[in-house]
Amino acid sequence: MIVVDWGTTNCRAFRLANGMIQDRAAGPGILGVPPGGFPDALRSVLAPWLAAGERQVLMSGMVGSRQGWVEAPYLPCPADLATLAAAAVPVPFDGAAVRLLPGLSARDADGVPEVMRGEEVQLFGALSETGPDALVCLPGSHSKWARLRDGRIEGFTTHLSGEAFAALRGHTILGRMMPDAPHDAEGFRRGVDRSGQGGGLLHHLFGVRALGLFGELAEAQAASFLSGLLIGHEVRAAGADQAGGRVHIIGSPLLAALYADAITQCGATPVIPNPDAAATGLVRLAEHVAWT
Amino acid sequence: MIVVDWGTTNCRAFRLANGMIQDRAAGPGILGVPPGGFPDALRSVLAPWLAAGERQVLMSGMVGSRQGWVEAPYLPCPADLATLAAAAVPVPFDGAAVRLLPGLSARDADGVPEVMRGEEVQLFGALSETGPDALVCLPGSHSKWARLRDGRIEGFTTHLSGEAFAALRGHTILGRMMPDAPHDAEGFRRGVDRSGQGGGLLHHLFGVRALGLFGELAEAQAASFLSGLLIGHEVRAAGADQAGGRVHIIGSPLLAALYADAITQCGATPVIPNPDAAATGLVRLAEHVAWT
Repeated sequence: MIVVDWGTTNCRAFRLANGMIQDRAAGPGILGVPPGGFPDALRSVLAPWLAAGERQVLMSGMVGSRQGWVEAPYLPCPADLATLAAAAVPVPFDGAAVRLLPGLSARDADGVPEVMRGEEVQLFGALSETGPDALVCLPGSHSKWARLRDGRIEGFTTHLSGEAFAALRGHTILGRMMPDAPHDAEGFRRGVDRSGQGGGLLHHLFGVRALGLFGELAEAQAASFLSGLLIGHEVRAAGADQAGGRVHIIGSPLLAALYADAITQCGATPVIPNPDAAATGLVRLAEHVAWT
Repeated sequence: MIVVDWGTTNCRAFRLANGMIQDRAAGPGILGVPPGGFPDALRSVLAPWLAAGERQVLMSGMVGSRQGWVEAPYLPCPADLATLAAAAVPVPFDGAAVRLLPGLSARDADGVPEVMRGEEVQLFGALSETGPDALVCLPGSHSKWARLRDGRIEGFTTHLSGEAFAALRGHTILGRMMPDAPHDAEGFRRGVDRSGQGGGLLHHLFGVRALGLFGELAEAQAASFLSGLLIGHEVRAAGADQAGGRVHIIGSPLLAALYADAITQCGATPVIPNPDAAATGLVRLAEHVAWT
């Protein structure tokens, strides 16, 4: 059996034997695939394994989005692992049984829609470590905060923090005071601290510039301050500062460490589980897919 | 006597007689002046009036910033009209008495610095219409909210809303769903409404995209929704939704109308005073400057 985590910028494939990862392969993310090029792209990644007789392929991630190969409609929350596996969409491919997992949708407390595609697999992959009831943060350009209950994904919210950081740093006056500089822990800490003060995020953004003008924020600290400010706003808005409990973090080691610092500073306890939650989740989901 | 409102993108000069505007002239903003070119730029704008014997020139705005002609250090709030006029800095210029007004600084409730340069003149210019005790909003790339008490500028806060809108629309995934479209009042209203809901601004930003994905926000409304969302966050953070009272708005007619809509929707009453508050303020300040 083969499982494929196919996102925007990477395609990671795993060959399984007896529910364990036996071999790995990689290819371009969906942004690197030309129109109509998905079958060829998959053939090229899986060629040796297909030649060896593999006939079951489970895929997840943005490959199932409107910009991907076949659109797999979002499955509404709450959703458990078996329901997600059962919603896999068949994709015609060289006579093999290829299945594509949908993403999840939800509604926030005010009825506004939410979507994820790929993160749900990581959440199920980390389930044995987070336990069935948990608050899980998946940091990124579009950070997700998911609530697990009884082993199901109950709901989640998304925050545009990463993309907002890049846009604000790259395309506002704030960027002029931010030379390329290594991460500055003190600047980051001050930004997280600032996020707990009054006046709102848009006011806090101007304050970054004003602190610089008054010599109260060094240029080498400014980008880390902005990062801490945005992540701090996200962590507090997600309720981690009130939860006082554990927040599990699934993400790249660098980003997970940043969020762990912010979460600690906001009074909760970060936990960083299994770093390859996506592969683990796909393996577990593959066991539940109806292959025939 | 001559007064000059010299900002980043425009230089507007007024010749006064008996405290009334008699004539007007215009030139490039400070971004259009080459290094060391300020004396020439001023000569070129004022030439006929100087030739006619004018010898007193009062300037305000970004011309007094670090990027301007001479840096006039910020005057701390609270500040009244006479104190501001007395802080005018002399600038050597062809034997004429040229004075440059400083901007104002303040500290927000958490001690973070604030600056304005030019808006203080508009505030004093609108004083006869706002009255001595008022909450005044000056919308723009960096919106200011000033509190007047007993005719003094007590303090103020700045919000990066305008610049954040441009960066988010131009340089994040949100812009992809925003074709050039005229202002959409219903989209704007929905954005302001959304700003009063839970989850924080960074979550609301992602919601713009999710609403679009689910067909719950038309592309033609999306930019106005984002504008309403940001302005709504600003208006609420500035306390206008709790004040329940009057908010005076000084700004371009288009922007003032937008803010008036948002302020009304948040439960306060917008008032739009004298549209040429800058010239009026300079005239009043010029009367208090020590020319000799």
